[in-house]
Amino acid sequence: MRGVLEIPENLLPLQAALAQGLERVQARFDGHLESDLPPVARLCRHVERYRGKMLRPSLTLLCGLAASTRAADFDAAFTENQISVAAVCEMVHMATLVHDDVLDEADTRRSGQTVNRLHGNETAVMLGDMLIASAFRLCATIDAPTALAVGRASVELCEGELLQLHHRDSWSIDEPTYFEIINRKTAALIAVACELGAIHAGASRPLAASLAAFGRHLGVAFQIQDDLLDLFGERSMLGKPVHKDLEKGKPTLPVIHHLAAASAHDRSRMLDLLDHAAIEMTHDLAHRIAVALESTGSIEHARSTAKAMVSRAIVELAGIPESPARSLLQVMADAVVSRVR
Amino acid sequence: MRGVLEIPENLLPLQAALAQGLERVQARFDGHLESDLPPVARLCRHVERYRGKMLRPSLTLLCGLAASTRAADFDAAFTENQISVAAVCEMVHMATLVHDDVLDEADTRRSGQTVNRLHGNETAVMLGDMLIASAFRLCATIDAPTALAVGRASVELCEGELLQLHHRDSWSIDEPTYFEIINRKTAALIAVACELGAIHAGASRPLAASLAAFGRHLGVAFQIQDDLLDLFGERSMLGKPVHKDLEKGKPTLPVIHHLAAASAHDRSRMLDLLDHAAIEMTHDLAHRIAVALESTGSIEHARSTAKAMVSRAIVELAGIPESPARSLLQVMADAVVSRVR
Repeated sequence: MRGVLEIPENLLPLQAALAQGLERVQARFDGHLESDLPPVARLCRHVERYRGKMLRPSLTLLCGLAASTRAADFDAAFTENQISVAAVCEMVHMATLVHDDVLDEADTRRSGQTVNRLHGNETAVMLGDMLIASAFRLCATIDAPTALAVGRASVELCEGELLQLHHRDSWSIDEPTYFEIINRKTAALIAVACELGAIHAGASRPLAASLAAFGRHLGVAFQIQDDLLDLFGERSMLGKPVHKDLEKGKPTLPVIHHLAAASAHDRSRMLDLLDHAAIEMTHDLAHRIAVALESTGSIEHARSTAKAMVSRAIVELAGIPESPARSLLQVMADAVVSRVR
Repeated sequence: MRGVLEIPENLLPLQAALAQGLERVQARFDGHLESDLPPVARLCRHVERYRGKMLRPSLTLLCGLAASTRAADFDAAFTENQISVAAVCEMVHMATLVHDDVLDEADTRRSGQTVNRLHGNETAVMLGDMLIASAFRLCATIDAPTALAVGRASVELCEGELLQLHHRDSWSIDEPTYFEIINRKTAALIAVACELGAIHAGASRPLAASLAAFGRHLGVAFQIQDDLLDLFGERSMLGKPVHKDLEKGKPTLPVIHHLAAASAHDRSRMLDLLDHAAIEMTHDLAHRIAVALESTGSIEHARSTAKAMVSRAIVELAGIPESPARSLLQVMADAVVSRVR
């Protein structure tokens, strides 16, 4: 994850190799998301500006190294297929960002203006579709099992988003429903990014399954942290507006926990605050919600749940031979819950 | 094309075989667009109500029969892969309908309420994404070359839509630009539906290429006719609102031709009418636009262009052995420009 990691010195050479790999992923992404129609090509180039932490491609490449019999030799070039898989996962992710911005009526992303803001919702919807179609086109150049795996994860992702929309403004959903949502909308793609990285490094089935499980748990932790950052993060750090979840009626773990744990009085007070937040979120309102969530230990509950998911992810790494790549995966996993952007 | 064909008596047995094939396509479609999450499954079932003429699946199955060495034996079952390809093409098409309805803010489709109307834009965008992802997941169960062909056509489709959006309210685009748009947004998918039908019937490369070219020309004709129906069709027949293109600033062939052919005075009068139409389309306004378009022979120009494209499509059939399937393809091609819905 670019820019958000504290890397131990012994892993710096690996980090450099990873950075080189990510540059190839970017080139594959940009080269594949192209058009001979100049206005369409200009839109595609706008998407390049959305590029962020590159979490999914980083995981694909590192899981590939960690699963490889040449794990110690991280100077060995990543294969073309690994680079393509990494680009595919980032493309599917980018499509969800472009469509999310339409749904959220967001004006800014990565501190720049969104496609919907600049070119309208119609163009943003179609550009997102083009990203999905381009991802599958690139996928199909690898092999059918890879295309099938990405197809499955993408369907799961949509199911998660649809389930979340179905439960919009249902503040009192239970935790299993919340985990069902984030497991599908976020963890499925991260899991497949890890799994395919391993498979295309020639990993055995059990090894690939361990790395898929690593990605699943990490994805759940990542989304809990994302939801916490939406509650408590800073716009200047995140490069996007905060408090969107509350405004859009998306129940997140601290709120769900609070509503289950609070007294009847506090519960109805929180529902009142949430009603106001849905109309207009203010600094004062955010503060009052935060204080209420703290009072039932709901923030701490979400933080410790995310940490527990990271621990479960790291347990999955135990079956993998020790290597710098495995160490860096562990550093990344820890960073998922300590990151501030 | 269900419900819009006048079938010669000698082709009725083939039509019955096609209808059976289409039922299998529907079952494949419905079975594949499923979810274990009840609210998502309910949304998927709503999409089934959008089903219309089944043009693309019909072409896939018929091109398969026409290209097959067993062309006379149309009782021979369609292969599983042919059924899947037909379902995939319909799924991609359905995704564009769901997203188009969001872009057009449409309330009705096939005389029923749209997803966006019933469940909001967010859900409609995500459901469209799920259709695309499901299409690719199904595709990947066939083989990588099929997935690649569908991926390419889908990217082309998005490019066409994006180019159209780029030229929104640009009433004076030239005809080549218009053809560039409709060739990509409509003809690409119809061409691949035909080509893959042939390939999965074991057709030779040249035969598959002829049927792809047949689909290309037919797709262009189909879109010109669609645009004419939007200008002159009846809501009760189409099951959707008319005059949407003018309201949304989409230049279509009659308007483009008129603006190029009219005197300076008539040209500026038409631009004035179009400005009004973009604000609010009335019956009177539609009538005045129609009269103006007639005055320069622009309607006739569009009609004859569509007919010429159908003729070019039919020329492509010449290299294919005579068979009932080839005859029915020709009947369908003629129907594309005579249909009123």
